[in-house]
Amino acid sequence: MSMEDLLDKPLTPWMTGGGINGDIVLSSRIRLARNLEGVPFPNRADATRLTDIVTQVRESVGDLKKTDKHEYMFVEMEKLSPLERQILVEKHIISPNLAGEPTNRALIVRDDAAVSIMINEEDHLRIQCLVPGLDLKSASDLANDVDDIIEAKHCFAYNEQVGYLTACPTNVGTGLRASVMVHLPALVLARQISRVMSAATQLGFTVRGLYGEGTEAIGNIFQFSNQLTLGHSEQEIIENLQAVAQQVVEQERSARQALLTGSAEALADRVWRAYGVLCYARIISGQEALTLLSEVRLGIDSGIITGVPATIFNELLVTSRPNFLQKIACRAYTDPVERDRLRAQLIREKFKEERKNA
Amino acid sequence: MSMEDLLDKPLTPWMTGGGINGDIVLSSRIRLARNLEGVPFPNRADATRLTDIVTQVRESVGDLKKTDKHEYMFVEMEKLSPLERQILVEKHIISPNLAGEPTNRALIVRDDAAVSIMINEEDHLRIQCLVPGLDLKSASDLANDVDDIIEAKHCFAYNEQVGYLTACPTNVGTGLRASVMVHLPALVLARQISRVMSAATQLGFTVRGLYGEGTEAIGNIFQFSNQLTLGHSEQEIIENLQAVAQQVVEQERSARQALLTGSAEALADRVWRAYGVLCYARIISGQEALTLLSEVRLGIDSGIITGVPATIFNELLVTSRPNFLQKIACRAYTDPVERDRLRAQLIREKFKEERKNA
Repeated sequence: MSMEDLLDKPLTPWMTGGGINGDIVLSSRIRLARNLEGVPFPNRADATRLTDIVTQVRESVGDLKKTDKHEYMFVEMEKLSPLERQILVEKHIISPNLAGEPTNRALIVRDDAAVSIMINEEDHLRIQCLVPGLDLKSASDLANDVDDIIEAKHCFAYNEQVGYLTACPTNVGTGLRASVMVHLPALVLARQISRVMSAATQLGFTVRGLYGEGTEAIGNIFQFSNQLTLGHSEQEIIENLQAVAQQVVEQERSARQALLTGSAEALADRVWRAYGVLCYARIISGQEALTLLSEVRLGIDSGIITGVPATIFNELLVTSRPNFLQKIACRAYTDPVERDRLRAQLIREKFKEERKNA
Repeated sequence: MSMEDLLDKPLTPWMTGGGINGDIVLSSRIRLARNLEGVPFPNRADATRLTDIVTQVRESVGDLKKTDKHEYMFVEMEKLSPLERQILVEKHIISPNLAGEPTNRALIVRDDAAVSIMINEEDHLRIQCLVPGLDLKSASDLANDVDDIIEAKHCFAYNEQVGYLTACPTNVGTGLRASVMVHLPALVLARQISRVMSAATQLGFTVRGLYGEGTEAIGNIFQFSNQLTLGHSEQEIIENLQAVAQQVVEQERSARQALLTGSAEALADRVWRAYGVLCYARIISGQEALTLLSEVRLGIDSGIITGVPATIFNELLVTSRPNFLQKIACRAYTDPVERDRLRAQLIREKFKEERKNA
């Protein structure tokens, strides 16, 4: 997948995989924060230093290619248009921060987008690995491989007592953030989600919504991640989050089972209505689209809706985001209604296509 | 159309006609109240008298057949099941009153249901004529023909000074009630309906909803009728209502035009969403069904939805009524959800059929 494909195609390859508990866990993610020894953190480094860091890290692209069957691409943030950068944000490849201030910043990304390395974000390096389903171990193994390859050539800022040094104290130690993105429509419908969220918070995990501000979870998608890294080993963090996510998956499964047993008809009515609206609406907001898509996905996962692939959810999740829509339309929107119209049209056409194929 | 057909088929022939302004006016109705001279009104007559009235009026069936290319059927109310009587109510062929107390009551009905004569309702005879569209003159001509044929053999209670005598003083005089059933979704959407209703009320007309209690109008269907008959000639009443209805039609047309000009997209979104829900919902209440069907009909009339006949509205308006549903299911419902499920199924199948034909 070329850079153009990464920007144009709604589904990055890692999204189509399914993976372990892939009907509930959309992705597992590991992020490592690393800094070069003896170089000021990006927020204290001048332009020359920053350019120097980009140049240094870029040298690792060749090493990464050598040890992997995948291609790696290097791109300076300033070479991309603001729209292209926003699409990378919507696809979870880069952070909003990197997109917002592109000067002297760069990205190394694997052709399937499963590995991305942001250069000169908050830290000199932010290594991110994404795998489908609930599999933090695989994501972690991948991140460690990448980490090792880069560390072979570069010296990272490391302190024997505290571990990796990072720009923000919350990342000091392992520099690790592990997270899982889960789709929990049944727990939301059954109003059990706040209980689940507060339990996870008490265990030291952060729960946030996808694209949402704070705890607002559009499309019933939640991100569980570790709060702290200091004082915990990498293995501990990963195992704990994996265990919590496993429990959340089981609770979502029981909630789905309970819905199917106790209110199968109401559930069928709900998911089919969502399907009907997505098939025919002419104007649809991003938030409504995600809510309805979530319900349709629940319908597919529960066997209520057949003949529609579950990936329609993952695909439209990206396609219906504002910047991606703008890219498809090849122009900026002056009117938000126009965007809602294009979103409805895209969704409608996608569903029509799937109905034809079914 | 036999009595069985009248009960089984959702559309009575007069409904499919279209008629003048048939996209807005569903039907024009004339009802004449008549009583036999020298016989107590039904509420003061004993069983023998009532039976006698039924026998006398029945004799006119032969005369009606002779002067009309249509068939006329006679049926004693007690010979019908309670469910069958309720279906006749839902189809506007008889009144809830006649259905509720069937003893010594009867009905004469033309095979297309455009003419029906209730015997021993509030008055000895209630002659009703229904035509599609806005055409009170035709309905009135038809009613007068029927009236003349019956009067040729029977003497009606009539006073030179006040006119026809009736059980209830509000009907004394012409014994005439003229009414039109209009579909006013755009006036409702534009929140202009209460203004229209109060204007009509001030001019001496009553406005009620279809099937609704009081002014509640399910499915945006309203019935406009004259309040008084005494002191007005038949012609006056009919011409006045025809003029008022004509104005309402024009106001609905401007409201539709305004919607199509000012908020075409919002309108399209609304009617297509209604269409989507009707195509896929699994449970649907009678009220919601009528609301959504009304929106779809507006979409058809406005040219937004194509390939679906406007009569789907008239048909499902009847089909989705509780008693008709019960007849289709061939059994009584113990569970209201079961009825809502059957309603959704029927509507869904009807739309699927139309989509295939389109």
